Amino acid sequence: MRKSIATVSLSGPLSEKLTAVATAGFDGVEIFENDLVGGPLSPEEVRLRCADLGLGIDLYQPFRDFEAVPADALARNLRRAERKFAVMERLGADLLLVCSSVAPDAVDDDALAAEQLRLLADRAAAHGIRIAYEALAWGRHVSTYDHAWRIVEQADHPALGTCLDSFHILSRGSDPKGIADIPGEKIFFLQLADAPLMAMDVLQWSRHYRCFPGQGGFDLAPLVAATVRAGYQGPLSLEVFNDVFRQAGAASTAVDALRSLLLLEESAGLSALPAASAPSGFAFAELTAADTEPLRGVLESLGFAHTARHTWKPVELWEQGEARILLNTGVSGRRQDPALTAVGVETPDPDRAARRAEAVLAPVVPRRRAPLDAPLDAVAAPDGTEFFFCRTGRPDHSSWTGDFTDVPSRAPAPERTDPAGTVHHIDHIALTQPWHQFDEASLFHRGVLGLEADGSLDLADPYGLVRSRAVASPDGGVRIVLNIAPAPDADGSRLQHIALATDDIVAAARRVRERGTGLLPIPANYYDDLDARHELEPQHLATLADLGILYDRDENGEFLHCYTATVGRVFFELVQRTGGYRGYGAQNAGVRLAAQHIHHH
Amino acid sequence: MRKSIATVSLSGPLSEKLTAVATAGFDGVEIFENDLVGGPLSPEEVRLRCADLGLGIDLYQPFRDFEAVPADALARNLRRAERKFAVMERLGADLLLVCSSVAPDAVDDDALAAEQLRLLADRAAAHGIRIAYEALAWGRHVSTYDHAWRIVEQADHPALGTCLDSFHILSRGSDPKGIADIPGEKIFFLQLADAPLMAMDVLQWSRHYRCFPGQGGFDLAPLVAATVRAGYQGPLSLEVFNDVFRQAGAASTAVDALRSLLLLEESAGLSALPAASAPSGFAFAELTAADTEPLRGVLESLGFAHTARHTWKPVELWEQGEARILLNTGVSGRRQDPALTAVGVETPDPDRAARRAEAVLAPVVPRRRAPLDAPLDAVAAPDGTEFFFCRTGRPDHSSWTGDFTDVPSRAPAPERTDPAGTVHHIDHIALTQPWHQFDEASLFHRGVLGLEADGSLDLADPYGLVRSRAVASPDGGVRIVLNIAPAPDADGSRLQHIALATDDIVAAARRVRERGTGLLPIPANYYDDLDARHELEPQHLATLADLGILYDRDENGEFLHCYTATVGRVFFELVQRTGGYRGYGAQNAGVRLAAQHIHHH
Repeated sequence: MRKSIATVSLSGPLSEKLTAVATAGFDGVEIFENDLVGGPLSPEEVRLRCADLGLGIDLYQPFRDFEAVPADALARNLRRAERKFAVMERLGADLLLVCSSVAPDAVDDDALAAEQLRLLADRAAAHGIRIAYEALAWGRHVSTYDHAWRIVEQADHPALGTCLDSFHILSRGSDPKGIADIPGEKIFFLQLADAPLMAMDVLQWSRHYRCFPGQGGFDLAPLVAATVRAGYQGPLSLEVFNDVFRQAGAASTAVDALRSLLLLEESAGLSALPAASAPSGFAFAELTAADTEPLRGVLESLGFAHTARHTWKPVELWEQGEARILLNTGVSGRRQDPALTAVGVETPDPDRAARRAEAVLAPVVPRRRAPLDAPLDAVAAPDGTEFFFCRTGRPDHSSWTGDFTDVPSRAPAPERTDPAGTVHHIDHIALTQPWHQFDEASLFHRGVLGLEADGSLDLADPYGLVRSRAVASPDGGVRIVLNIAPAPDADGSRLQHIALATDDIVAAARRVRERGTGLLPIPANYYDDLDARHELEPQHLATLADLGILYDRDENGEFLHCYTATVGRVFFELVQRTGGYRGYGAQNAGVRLAAQHIHHH
Repeated sequence: MRKSIATVSLSGPLSEKLTAVATAGFDGVEIFENDLVGGPLSPEEVRLRCADLGLGIDLYQPFRDFEAVPADALARNLRRAERKFAVMERLGADLLLVCSSVAPDAVDDDALAAEQLRLLADRAAAHGIRIAYEALAWGRHVSTYDHAWRIVEQADHPALGTCLDSFHILSRGSDPKGIADIPGEKIFFLQLADAPLMAMDVLQWSRHYRCFPGQGGFDLAPLVAATVRAGYQGPLSLEVFNDVFRQAGAASTAVDALRSLLLLEESAGLSALPAASAPSGFAFAELTAADTEPLRGVLESLGFAHTARHTWKPVELWEQGEARILLNTGVSGRRQDPALTAVGVETPDPDRAARRAEAVLAPVVPRRRAPLDAPLDAVAAPDGTEFFFCRTGRPDHSSWTGDFTDVPSRAPAPERTDPAGTVHHIDHIALTQPWHQFDEASLFHRGVLGLEADGSLDLADPYGLVRSRAVASPDGGVRIVLNIAPAPDADGSRLQHIALATDDIVAAARRVRERGTGLLPIPANYYDDLDARHELEPQHLATLADLGILYDRDENGEFLHCYTATVGRVFFELVQRTGGYRGYGAQNAGVRLAAQHIHHH
């Protein structure tokens, strides 16, 4: 279907918005009046600019507080409308959004509203313009889509139809099934926005917290499907008022926006993209640093061994069980601090995964490989982390490990022979997101990688709240925690970590300690509180306290975890899950963050 | 009265919070459990630290989900309480906050709640500890203060009393009059927080948006007065959960916090500070720059004349009517860009104003004056702007103008003799606030300067929303607009301006244009929209469009305004108010901001 976006959804002046919208690949725009009024481009210049960019002007909006008023107000409102028709003619726009009145002088009289809207449509038709009447969720007398439609039906004018807006419909809890009762040709426009589920004043909710489809809590697919089934032929158009998007770069927001529409179209059954399939595990995590020596020390203490090196790149493979860490010293000058730069995920069909990623506008990473390298597709997540689609060591597909040659193993340390405390695999990784891309990131990981998102949590850092949201494959084989720091320049706003799974965290933690690299010290007060809350067996509690192991519990099982020191932007976590514990120890995040502030500043 | 603050109200680790609280001048603290649990100081060390700082530990909190549970849960909860009593004994705290249960296993049975709380109080008393039971606004079965008190009364134990919390009481719209029915000695604690009036989930509202008294929309004085009348003897204690304060510096937040309590105490009739009296007008606005030449050009074009110079400082006085601008080239190296650094306000009693400012912890600015200078008291506002308390040219008080000597006036320009378009006085000034000090700033201007605050507005900048709030004297003689940019690093986050009042803005704007310094160009689209909205007389509209004059109207009168180019951080506005128009043209702010982005970047 045709895809549009309202200019109010993006940041910056109108000319930059139009360029961003066209570059992302939209077919059209809704011109939001404030963007025109505050800008230096005349309507004719905007028309030309859109034509040059290949963008249609699908709607001009909003026209407020028109209908169901006394005669003198009607005369003023018609004069006001004529002025706007003149602007629209200069602009080459032929559809005007009229939203239901919030004016104190409007009366509760559907017949009068219908009569006056009919008059407006008649005036509009003389200019070749049509009117799309929409119910605002906070309209004075008309606040539901079915009520707006009844008035349109009663007015019965060919130049008058209705505009459906998913926010106004779903924020009030209206059932979109009723859309089936509206003839498709009378649905002149469909505006789409999602929003997080919040109990707050609907006007404030709408003005500040709307987001793109799939980023919030609304179920948009049935609404879109119902509208299309009713016979709607117009565009899917995004209209999002969002405090964050107002500040973020228009170009990247426009791409996110179009991705959200492509995914919505898919979930509404209106298009077929290469199917998503969730990855089954982590193939590797890649750390990049100018000097990898401190990381090597930490990896050795965690029990990793350097097993192979890349045939021609300065990359080492370190392994333990199914956990694989790449150390890459081939850094550009820009990023010197050790950082988690790439993640390999085990993918049932890497080629299809890459085709899907491309279809939903994920930036495909140039392969930059030598002729003999295994082909390896990767996409960049919103935070810049590169995700590689891998099939490690399977006969049906080339493997990235083919680019590595074994290194002679050093003599195994004595404790290497003791399997207690061995790391089995990567449990999860945690990535800190740019402050304006939290919602985008979770949609990216769901839409591109096929992961599912948990709810969003607030974690109390001593210097502000950290928002946190996990995305994971259904079986937990791939888990990624997305965090956003309280302020762009806050301490810890760039931290990342790799969590390693073990069946015996006490043995693993002891090994780290014996090998001399430290674990993050946890205050004794924490264990007093843990004792009060959970009644752990005293000897067990003493062991946890001795090693700095944190503890959590849910209805399914237990979670034990501890942390290494931080190197650059990166630290490691050891985790032991028992039973079906599903979380990440959020209960302990405040204590961990406070301890990290003390020990790294 | 004794004054305390909960550690959760401030940013940083516990030790820094305690230092900030003591330095600001509080008498005590509530230790918020998370601050202790996440920190390295043992309870004994916290006790010593508080003793060293002269701080009492007035409360330990919170203890959650205790009462009205089945027998097995009661046993677990009592064990948990005993652990906390042990921590409190080490801490030297003797009052524990128990908030009403939100646990699923709690039953709706007041008698059971009272019986179990009585048991808890009995256990506590054995440790010399008392229990203050508080109703959370979202408590499962107990959510109002009178309900909590009925349970305390029924339990009837000397170690059990109630804790009143202004947020929990006022967020539910409860009437604080009922506090009179509680015996004062059974009110063990009083927690105070304000909040902006918002229609949202009360738990989210409480956790993120609480603010200090006087910064929000609650009427706290009657609640405090009622509690004291009931015989309450404990401290006034602040407990504020606020996303912004979590990130701001603890030291300055603690001072704001104590100021808010001092002002609340005054408004509740519990203390007498030197009385506030609103200033009657602006004495001067002082601009500081290394190179004042560009500012001189703008001032000349606005019709100002250089009339005097400071006897020994590099400061020039420019005058027109009652509008006085000081140009100061005595800058330190740090701030080179032209900036509005000081404001003189005409004050009925400058000495009393200075004593009041000092009493409410406003930072008094060192006078740095020569022996012969007129004494001049000043305080620094949260954004660093210095406010001087002046009586200009009155026989009853020394005047700052006495430090200036006239300069030989140049030959008056021909148009100087034409009074049309003369500037009469400074209408208002606009100051951009640091992002974390918006609420603090409005409280400062009210409490220190005696101004009154308007509501907060959102202005749409192309790159995000600007929050704006005006403070003014009742007669409008002094008006100050406080703005906060959408992001700390946003364009325009540092802009300030001086608005000059004239009776003939068309003549004034023509004069500026004739003298060659530009006015901010306003797009033609704005005037098309203005025509649609307001039906102005066509010739008048054409004049406004020609000069770039903006127009607004309220129920009392009209407002015409236009802007000069920006010099450094500063620009000027010409304004003409007719009738009783009270605003600042907020309707036009988006157009102005968009135009400034175009013309200054």
